[in-house]
Amino acid sequence: MTNLVLLRHGESEWNREGRFAGWVDVALTATGIEQARRAGITLRDRLFDFDLCYTSVLRRATHTAWHCLDAMDRTWLPTIRSWRLNERHYGALHGLNKAATANAYGEEQVRLWRRSYDTRPPALSAAGTRSFTADRRYADMHVPASESVEDTVARVLPFLEQFIRPSVSSGTRALVVAHGTSLRAMIKILCGLTPSEIVRTEISNGVPLVVELDKWGKARRSYSLDG
Amino acid sequence: MTNLVLLRHGESEWNREGRFAGWVDVALTATGIEQARRAGITLRDRLFDFDLCYTSVLRRATHTAWHCLDAMDRTWLPTIRSWRLNERHYGALHGLNKAATANAYGEEQVRLWRRSYDTRPPALSAAGTRSFTADRRYADMHVPASESVEDTVARVLPFLEQFIRPSVSSGTRALVVAHGTSLRAMIKILCGLTPSEIVRTEISNGVPLVVELDKWGKARRSYSLDG
Repeated sequence: MTNLVLLRHGESEWNREGRFAGWVDVALTATGIEQARRAGITLRDRLFDFDLCYTSVLRRATHTAWHCLDAMDRTWLPTIRSWRLNERHYGALHGLNKAATANAYGEEQVRLWRRSYDTRPPALSAAGTRSFTADRRYADMHVPASESVEDTVARVLPFLEQFIRPSVSSGTRALVVAHGTSLRAMIKILCGLTPSEIVRTEISNGVPLVVELDKWGKARRSYSLDG
Repeated sequence: MTNLVLLRHGESEWNREGRFAGWVDVALTATGIEQARRAGITLRDRLFDFDLCYTSVLRRATHTAWHCLDAMDRTWLPTIRSWRLNERHYGALHGLNKAATANAYGEEQVRLWRRSYDTRPPALSAAGTRSFTADRRYADMHVPASESVEDTVARVLPFLEQFIRPSVSSGTRALVVAHGTSLRAMIKILCGLTPSEIVRTEISNGVPLVVELDKWGKARRSYSLDG
C-alpha cells in the first residue's frame, strides 16, 4: 500500500473574489500562504514524507508547494511541473466574478458550466487565447479555447498514467499540488468515480487528501488530513 | 555565444553573524530575500530569460532561486538540484563565528583555511558527520569530513561537465543559484583560472554574474549585473 497525497492550492486572490481563475496566474492570499504552511506542518506531524513533488505550471500551485515543502523542511525535494495539472480552462469566463456571470447568463447556466461533466463554457476569444499561446509555458502545444470537466480529465489522464502512477507503484512517495478540477480528475481516474459522482466532489483549499493505492495502483480509500 | 548566469544566494543569517555555514541549512535574512528579488528584477529589466534553473540542495540557495524566479514571473521554470552545488564543507568550523575561530586558532590559520586552495579545515567529528549522513539529501553518498577549495572544485566539476555545460552548449539558457565556493569552482573551470586567482575571487550575495560562453562552451568574458 502506497500513499499518494493530493493538495489543492491555498486560497487565491480570485478564490476570495469569487472570480473564475482557470489558467490565469493569480497569487495566493495571506490566508492561502498560511493554509499551505499549515498543510506542510500537518503532513510532517502525521509523519508523512515525500520523495517527489508534482505541480501545475500555475503560480498559486507552485507557491503552495513551496510553502508546504518549506514547512516540512523539504525545500530540496525534486519537483516536476506540468500544464496537464493546471486548473480547468474556463474559456470566456476567465476573470469573471461568479455572481456577475450568474446575473448575465443565469444561475442555471453557470451551475451547468461549473458542475456538468461535458459542457464547455463559451470559448475564449482569439485575443484572449493569444494571451496564453504567447506564454512560453504553453509554447509548442494546442491551448484549448475552453474545457469541460471531461476535457480536463482527458488531459490529466496521460500525465497521471505515464508519470505519477508508475512512480507511486515503484514506491515513490509523491505529493501532487494542483487545482480543484485537475485533482478531481485524478480522483475520478484513481477511484473509478462516475461523472455524476466527480462533479459533486469538493476539495478544500490547502487540506491534504491522502489516497491509499494498492500494489496495482488502485485506490483503496481516501481521507482528508485536517490540520 | 550563450550566457550562463551565476547567482550567489542572498545574505543568510550566518553571513550576517559571520559564522561558517557550509552545509548547515541556514535561512535567508530579510535583506537576503530582498537581494534575491532584486536580482530577478535586474535580470528581467536587462532582458535576461531562462529555460532551466540549477540550485544546490541547501535552503538558502533554493529560497534565493524561488524569490529570483518569482520576481521574473518564472515560478514555473524547471529546476534541477544537486548537492554538488552546495557550499564548501567546512568540517569542524561549521557554526563557528569567524572571529572566535580566529581567536582560537589564530588569524593566519583561519586565513589559510579560508583562502588556501588545498588546505582542509579540521575534520567534522563523527557525531557531526552523522548529522549530515542521517539527512535524506545525502543518503547513499560519501559525506566529506571537510573540504579544501580543491575538493569543492573536484566535486562541482562532474556536475558542470555532465549537466550544465552540455545544456548550455545546446542553447539552454541556464541560471545557477549556488554558493560562494561552488560558484568560484565553476568560474575556475569555465574561465581557466589558476588556484591563486580563484581563491582571491569574491562573489557578492545576490548579484548576478553573467558568463559568456562561446559555441565550444569556453568562457569569453564575465560581468556582474548590479541592480
